[in-house]
Amino acid sequence: MKQLILTVIGGGSTYTPELVEGIIKGFEVFPVKELRLVDIDEEKLNIVGSLVRRMVESSNVPIKLSLTTDRKKALEGADFVVSQIRVGGIRARIKDERIPLEFGVIGQETTGAGGFANALRTIPVMLDIAKDIEELTNNAWLINFTNPSGIVTEALLRFSKVKTIGLCNVPINFFYRFANILGVDISDIYLDYVGLNHLSWVRRVYCRGNDVTNKILENVKDGLSQKERGIVELINMIPNSYLHYYYFKDEVLEAQKSSERTRGEIVLEVEEKLLEKYKDESLKEKPPELSQRGGAHYSDAAVELMKSIYLDRRDIQIVNVMNNGSITDLPDNGVVEVPCVISGNGAMPISMGRLEPFIKGLAQTVKYYEQLTVESAVEGDIKKAKQALLIHPLVGAKAVAEGLLEKILEENKTFLPQFFGR
Amino acid sequence: MKQLILTVIGGGSTYTPELVEGIIKGFEVFPVKELRLVDIDEEKLNIVGSLVRRMVESSNVPIKLSLTTDRKKALEGADFVVSQIRVGGIRARIKDERIPLEFGVIGQETTGAGGFANALRTIPVMLDIAKDIEELTNNAWLINFTNPSGIVTEALLRFSKVKTIGLCNVPINFFYRFANILGVDISDIYLDYVGLNHLSWVRRVYCRGNDVTNKILENVKDGLSQKERGIVELINMIPNSYLHYYYFKDEVLEAQKSSERTRGEIVLEVEEKLLEKYKDESLKEKPPELSQRGGAHYSDAAVELMKSIYLDRRDIQIVNVMNNGSITDLPDNGVVEVPCVISGNGAMPISMGRLEPFIKGLAQTVKYYEQLTVESAVEGDIKKAKQALLIHPLVGAKAVAEGLLEKILEENKTFLPQFFGR
Amino acid sequence: MKQLILTVIGGGSTYTPELVEGIIKGFEVFPVKELRLVDIDEEKLNIVGSLVRRMVESSNVPIKLSLTTDRKKALEGADFVVSQIRVGGIRARIKDERIPLEFGVIGQETTGAGGFANALRTIPVMLDIAKDIEELTNNAWLINFTNPSGIVTEALLRFSKVKTIGLCNVPINFFYRFANILGVDISDIYLDYVGLNHLSWVRRVYCRGNDVTNKILENVKDGLSQKERGIVELINMIPNSYLHYYYFKDEVLEAQKSSERTRGEIVLEVEEKLLEKYKDESLKEKPPELSQRGGAHYSDAAVELMKSIYLDRRDIQIVNVMNNGSITDLPDNGVVEVPCVISGNGAMPISMGRLEPFIKGLAQTVKYYEQLTVESAVEGDIKKAKQALLIHPLVGAKAVAEGLLEKILEENKTFLPQFFGR
Amino acid sequence: MKQLILTVIGGGSTYTPELVEGIIKGFEVFPVKELRLVDIDEEKLNIVGSLVRRMVESSNVPIKLSLTTDRKKALEGADFVVSQIRVGGIRARIKDERIPLEFGVIGQETTGAGGFANALRTIPVMLDIAKDIEELTNNAWLINFTNPSGIVTEALLRFSKVKTIGLCNVPINFFYRFANILGVDISDIYLDYVGLNHLSWVRRVYCRGNDVTNKILENVKDGLSQKERGIVELINMIPNSYLHYYYFKDEVLEAQKSSERTRGEIVLEVEEKLLEKYKDESLKEKPPELSQRGGAHYSDAAVELMKSIYLDRRDIQIVNVMNNGSITDLPDNGVVEVPCVISGNGAMPISMGRLEPFIKGLAQTVKYYEQLTVESAVEGDIKKAKQALLIHPLVGAKAVAEGLLEKILEENKTFLPQFFGR
Repeated sequence: MKQLILTVIGGGSTYTPELVEGIIKGFEVFPVKELRLVDIDEEKLNIVGSLVRRMVESSNVPIKLSLTTDRKKALEGADFVVSQIRVGGIRARIKDERIPLEFGVIGQETTGAGGFANALRTIPVMLDIAKDIEELTNNAWLINFTNPSGIVTEALLRFSKVKTIGLCNVPINFFYRFANILGVDISDIYLDYVGLNHLSWVRRVYCRGNDVTNKILENVKDGLSQKERGIVELINMIPNSYLHYYYFKDEVLEAQKSSERTRGEIVLEVEEKLLEKYKDESLKEKPPELSQRGGAHYSDAAVELMKSIYLDRRDIQIVNVMNNGSITDLPDNGVVEVPCVISGNGAMPISMGRLEPFIKGLAQTVKYYEQLTVESAVEGDIKKAKQALLIHPLVGAKAVAEGLLEKILEENKTFLPQFFGR
Repeated sequence: MKQLILTVIGGGSTYTPELVEGIIKGFEVFPVKELRLVDIDEEKLNIVGSLVRRMVESSNVPIKLSLTTDRKKALEGADFVVSQIRVGGIRARIKDERIPLEFGVIGQETTGAGGFANALRTIPVMLDIAKDIEELTNNAWLINFTNPSGIVTEALLRFSKVKTIGLCNVPINFFYRFANILGVDISDIYLDYVGLNHLSWVRRVYCRGNDVTNKILENVKDGLSQKERGIVELINMIPNSYLHYYYFKDEVLEAQKSSERTRGEIVLEVEEKLLEKYKDESLKEKPPELSQRGGAHYSDAAVELMKSIYLDRRDIQIVNVMNNGSITDLPDNGVVEVPCVISGNGAMPISMGRLEPFIKGLAQTVKYYEQLTVESAVEGDIKKAKQALLIHPLVGAKAVAEGLLEKILEENKTFLPQFFGR
Repeated sequence: MKQLILTVIGGGSTYTPELVEGIIKGFEVFPVKELRLVDIDEEKLNIVGSLVRRMVESSNVPIKLSLTTDRKKALEGADFVVSQIRVGGIRARIKDERIPLEFGVIGQETTGAGGFANALRTIPVMLDIAKDIEELTNNAWLINFTNPSGIVTEALLRFSKVKTIGLCNVPINFFYRFANILGVDISDIYLDYVGLNHLSWVRRVYCRGNDVTNKILENVKDGLSQKERGIVELINMIPNSYLHYYYFKDEVLEAQKSSERTRGEIVLEVEEKLLEKYKDESLKEKPPELSQRGGAHYSDAAVELMKSIYLDRRDIQIVNVMNNGSITDLPDNGVVEVPCVISGNGAMPISMGRLEPFIKGLAQTVKYYEQLTVESAVEGDIKKAKQALLIHPLVGAKAVAEGLLEKILEENKTFLPQFFGR
Repeated sequence: MKQLILTVIGGGSTYTPELVEGIIKGFEVFPVKELRLVDIDEEKLNIVGSLVRRMVESSNVPIKLSLTTDRKKALEGADFVVSQIRVGGIRARIKDERIPLEFGVIGQETTGAGGFANALRTIPVMLDIAKDIEELTNNAWLINFTNPSGIVTEALLRFSKVKTIGLCNVPINFFYRFANILGVDISDIYLDYVGLNHLSWVRRVYCRGNDVTNKILENVKDGLSQKERGIVELINMIPNSYLHYYYFKDEVLEAQKSSERTRGEIVLEVEEKLLEKYKDESLKEKPPELSQRGGAHYSDAAVELMKSIYLDRRDIQIVNVMNNGSITDLPDNGVVEVPCVISGNGAMPISMGRLEPFIKGLAQTVKYYEQLTVESAVEGDIKKAKQALLIHPLVGAKAVAEGLLEKILEENKTFLPQFFGR
C-alpha cells in the first residue's frame, strides 16, 4: 500500500488538531507517512505544531511531522493537500462583518457582501497555491475547506488544472444530526440534497432505503421558532441554516445591528484562549474547548473524503464539484454542493434533476452572483464586482450605489493585487 | 375586405375614448363595422358610452355602436376582443396598495403582493371570459390589457385555447420616447428588449439599423437621480420603470409609508373628474385630462396590434407571448415580453438568446413567482400561493409568515371563488 | 431481517436455472423465502420447474418453490418481480429476423425492425403485468430483463407507477471482460459508460481509480477485424457489440442474407436440447450447455441488483433508468443505460454530462425512435409506428414506403390488441 | 441616400448576369454606385464582365463597373460583398461526385462525402477572404452563396468577425412555387420552415395569415412518385428536395452508378455553351439559357436580402444564421436555415421552438457532421474529418474504414493547405 504525503495549508489554524486526530485514527487504512503543516504565521504554526507533535508522539503511528513557512517545500511531492487558509486572518473577517453593516446590509464571512470581500481576497491566493500544486506535485488532490468554499472551489476548477474538491461540514452535520434522531449510523442515511455551499436544501431523507423525511421534518420543526417553522412547512424541506440569512434578512440585520460583538470578534477571543490552552505541554490531544470554535465533524469530512479517494471506495459524500448537468437548472460550469460518488478518480455527482420552483430562483441568482464574483476576482473587473453585489439578495442596488464596493476595496487594498497591482 | 366586430370588455373604463379614437382614425385599413362595449357597471358604461357615441357620430365612419351588460351577447361572432377589466374596481386596487404596507412590504397594483392579489381576483374571471370566447366566436383574437397583463396572459395561454396576445403600453412608450430623442419616426426604431411584463430591459436601441444605444443611454441618464444613474451605468441597459420597485425597494417602501394617498386613491379622484367631464354632451372627442390617467399610447398599441393581425403586416411589436425558447434562460411555457413578428397567424417571438448574468436571476425568480401565482389562482392552491409570495423579491418569508396571505384572501373573499367557493 | 417473496415472470425460460443458482448462492444476504415461477407455457414450466426444485432441494436453503400459470396468484405480496418473458416465443422472434430481410433491412430481435415488432408485441403485456403488480403487491420492485429491455423499461416508467429497473447483461459482461484483462476483481472497475440499451459506449475504464482505458483499448482491438479496429481507434471508446449492426450495416445485411439459419432458429434448437437435458432427473444444477444459450452473467446482474436494493448497498451498477438529466443531450423522460447508485430507494444515475459529437446524433436518433415506438405501442398509433421505422438508422424510408410495417402488423396480429382490438 | 460599393467575389461566374440584372432593376432603392467583379480566372472574368458591361450600359443606371483579379483592391471600402466562388472549379466538383461513388456512397457537391470535400477546400479560402474584409472594408456585409452554404457560413461566423449571412435559393423557390399554386404574391406567404441548408422542412404554409398547408401538400404530392408521397404523408411537411438523398439513399446511389455523366459533367458543358453565348457582343441582357444552369431566383434572393439590410426593412427572409436558440434542439453555436427578420443590424431568427421527433435526429446528426467538418477544415484535424464522415448518414463507417478520406485528401491536395501545408 502506497504511503502518503499530506500537506495542510493554513496548518497553524486552531482547527488543525481536529484534522490530525482524524488522520491518526484513520492511519490503518489511510497511511500518511508525512504530515506537513505550512502557515505564514510562524508563531501560531509553532504553537499548533507542538500540540500536533505531542498528539502524533502519544499515538503509535509512524507519521513524520514537519512544520514550515515555505509553501513550495511543503508541497513538493504531496499526494493530498488540505487548504484551510483565511486571507487577512480574523481581523479581515471582522471587517467583512462590520463594513456591510455601515451600509445597512448584513455582514457575514461567507455570504453577502462579507463573503464577497472574502472571495476577492482569497481567490488570487488560492490560484497561486494551485499553480504551486501543478508544478510541485504529481497531480495531487486539493481538498478545499477555505471559505467561501463553493466560490473558491469554482475559481480553482475554472482557472486551474488542479483536481479540487470543495468541502464544508454542513452536509456531514446533517448526516450526524439525522442519524442521531433516528438512532442509526450515518452510513444508513442517504440525503436528496441540492444547492450551493451555504445555500442548500435537504429535499428527502432516506434511512436504509426508506423515506423518513416526514419524521425528520417533525423533529427539525420542534427546534424552530414559529416563523421558521412556517417556512419549513411551506417548502417541506430542511434548509441549510445559512438560509436563515435569506429568509429572515430584516430580522438578522436588526440582530446584527443591535449586537455588540460580531461572530468574528467572539471567535478572536476563543482562538486566543485555545492557543493558550495548546501551549500546555501536558496536552496531548484535541481539547474539548475546540468544539466551541465551530467546525464540528470537520475532521471526519476531510478524512472520509481522502480515504474514499485513496481507497477508491465509491461511497456517497456531499461535496462541492462542477455541476456538469447534475442540477439541470444551474449552469454546467458552476460549482454545486450535491451528493457525489467518491472514487479514486474523483467526485462524480449524482443526477439531481430539476429544482422546485420555490427554491430555484434563489439558487440560480446566488450562482450568478458567485460566477460574477469569481470572474471579478480573477480578472480584477470592477464592473463585474458591482454587478455581483447588485444581484446578491442580501446586498442589492442601494448598497452598490452608495459606495459599499469602494469601501470594501479600500479596506482590503493590501490583499487585492488584481485590483490595485502588487 | 372583411368588416369586423370588435368587443371591448370593460368598455365602461375611462380609457375607452382613447381606444375608440384609435379605431376611428384607423378605420380605413381596419374597418370595424360593429363596436360593442360591455361592462358590469351600467352607470359608467352609459356615461362612457355616450361620449363614445358622440365621437363616432362626429366622425364620418360607419361604425355601429352597442352598449350592453350582457357579455355573451357582446361576444357573439366577434372577430377581436379587447379586455381591459379591473376585477373589484379601483377600491380593490386601493386594498392591493394598502394591505401589503401593513406588513412592511410594497403595495402596488401589478407587482409584489398587490399585483399578486390582483392576479388571484382576475384570473378566474378572465378564464370565464375565455370560455365564452371559445364558445361564442369564430376563434376570435383576445387582446389582453387586463393587469397584471403578463400573468393574466400566461393563465389564458396555459388554461384556455383562445388566441391571446398580452399588451402593455410600456414598450410602445419606449419607442415614442426614443424616437423623440432621436427626432425620427417610431418605425425607424428597433429595440433589443427582453424580460417580463413590468420587468424588462432594453438592451440595445437601433435606429435604421444603426446601434444608437449609447446616445439613448446618455439622454436617459440625464433624467435620473444619481443612484438610478449608477444602476443604469452598471447594467448598460435601459430598465423598465417598474424595476425601480426592485432596485430601490427600501426607498420605495419608505416613500409609500410616508405618502398620504396611494396611487389608487389619486386615480379614484381623477376618474371621478373624468366621468364628470365625459357627461358634458358638447364633448365629442377624448378630453386632454385623460392623459393624467396614465396609459399614454394605449390606443396606439392596441390598434396597431389588431391592424397587423388583420392585415398580416408582419411588422415587429413588443408583446406578451409564450416564450417557446425565445429567451433561452426562461421556461418554454412561460409568458415573456419580447419583440415579435405580428402576422395574420399571430405573434411570433424573435430569438432573444441568453440573458446577461446580472439580470437573469431576477427575471427567472419573478417568472417562477408568476407561474406559481397562475397555478395557485387556477387551482385554488393555498400552498402555491404562499410559495409564490415567499419567492417574490418584494415580499418574502417575513410577510408570508406573518399572515399577509391570510389578510389578502380575507379582504378579497368575494372575488376568490377558487379559494372560498362560489 | 425481512424474508422475501420473489416472483419470476416467464419462469419457464431455460434461463431460469441460471437465475436460481444465483439466488441459492446469495441466500445468506438476500433471503428469498418464497420463489414463484409463473409462465403461460405449462409444459416448459414443469420441466424447468422440476430442475429448479432439484436444485433447491440439493442445496441447504429453505426456499419454498411454487410453479403456477396464474400470474395474479404468483404476484400476490411479492417483494421483487423478475420479468423475462418473450411474447410470441421464439417463433415470433424468428419472424422478427425473417420479415425485415424480405424488405432488404437487417432482421434482429432487439434492434431495427425486428426489435420494433418485438416492442409492439411486448409493451401491452408488460403494462398488464405492471397493473397487476400495482394492485397485488406492496409496491414491489420490477427487474425487467424482457427485451427490448430499454424500450420496455421506458414504457413501464412512463405508463405505469411500478418501480422498474431495466437490466441487460452487456454491462456486467464488460466488467468481467475488463477485470479479466487486468487480472483484478470486477469490484475494482468503474466504467464511464453512456448510451442506451444495446447502443452504448464505454468512454473510459478505471481500475482502483486509475484510468486504464488505453490498456483495455489495446486488448480489445486485438480481437477485432481491421475495419472494426479503425472505428475503435477513431472514437477511442469501446462500443457495445450491438453497434456492429449500425457501423457495419451493409456487411451485416449481406451476412444475414447469405446465412441459412437465423440466430432464432439456432436458439430454438439449443432450447430443445436444453429442455431434454433438464428433464434428466439426476441433474441437480445448471448444466454447462446453458452457456451456449447466451446470457452469461445474467444471474449475477439480477441478483446483485436485487441485493443492493434490499441491503441499501449504494454501489454502482449499470442499469436502465429514466435519464432525468444524466445525459444532457438526451430527453429527461427517456430511458438510458448509465452507471447508477443502487440503493434501497432505487437506482440513481450519475451525471454523465454531454455526449461526444461523433456518438451523440446516433444516440439521439435511436432514442427518438424508441420514444415513438413506445408511444405507438401504447396508443396503437400507426402513424407513430411508421415514423419510428422511418427514422431508425437500420430501416428508413424505403422499408416504410414498401409495406414493411403492414407485414409486421399482419404477421403479429394476434399479439397486437392495441392495433387490432382484442 | 448613401451610395454603395458592391464587390462580387467569383464575379467571373456564369451566374453573375443574373445577379447584375437584379442590381440594375433595384437601383432606385438600392443604389450601387460601384460594382466590382473579382475572379482568379481572368479569361472567364473578361467574358462575363463584357456582357455585364453591356447590360449596365444598355440600362440607364450610373453604375461604375470594374473587373479585377486583385481581391484586395476589389474589397477596399466595399459596403456589401457577395461570395459565389467554387474552389477548384467544376473539375473539382466532378471529383466530389466521382470519388465517393468508387466507395459505394453517393457523390454530390454539397452533401455527403462530396460536399465534405468541397467544404475542406472552400473554408480556408473563405476565411482568407473574411480576413481581407475585416481589414479593407468598414465592416461590410458578406452575403455568402458559396457552397456548401450552411457549412461555409458557420465557419465564417465561428472563425471570423465578418457580418455574414448565408444564402441559398431553395427557400425563395419555395415561396415562388407556393405563391404560384395559390395565385398570390410571394409577399403574401409565410413559411414555418426549419432545418439546415439543404436539409430543411416546411412545416406549415400561411397565406395572408391563413394556414393553407393542406392545400399546398395536396398540390405538392401530385408531382411525386408513390414512395415520395408516402414520406410526405407520413411527416405532413414539405421536404427540401435535397432530403431525397437521405430518404432514398439506395435508389439515388443506384441511379448515380448507372448514370453516364454526373451533374457536374453536364454543368461543365452548359457553362461552356453559356460562355460562348456571353461572347456575343449583341447580347445585352441575361440570356434565357442561363435558367438551365439552375439557380433560379438566385438574383432575387441576393438583392432582396441586401435591400432589406440597406433599407432596414425588417421583413422576413429565410437565411442561414447562428441558431442562438431559434431551434431549441440544435446547438446555439451552429448555423441553421430559418425565417429571420432582416434589418439594418442583420438577420434576427424567429423562435422556431422544438423539432418534431421524426425530423429531429436527422437535423441534429447532420449538424454535428457539419460542426466536425468546419473544425476539421479550420484545424486541419484528420481525426475530426474521419469522425465527420463516420456520422454522416450518407457515408458512415464502411467508407471511412476503406480509405475514402485518404482518397479525398490526396485528390484535393493542392487545395488543402491546412492538411498538407502551403
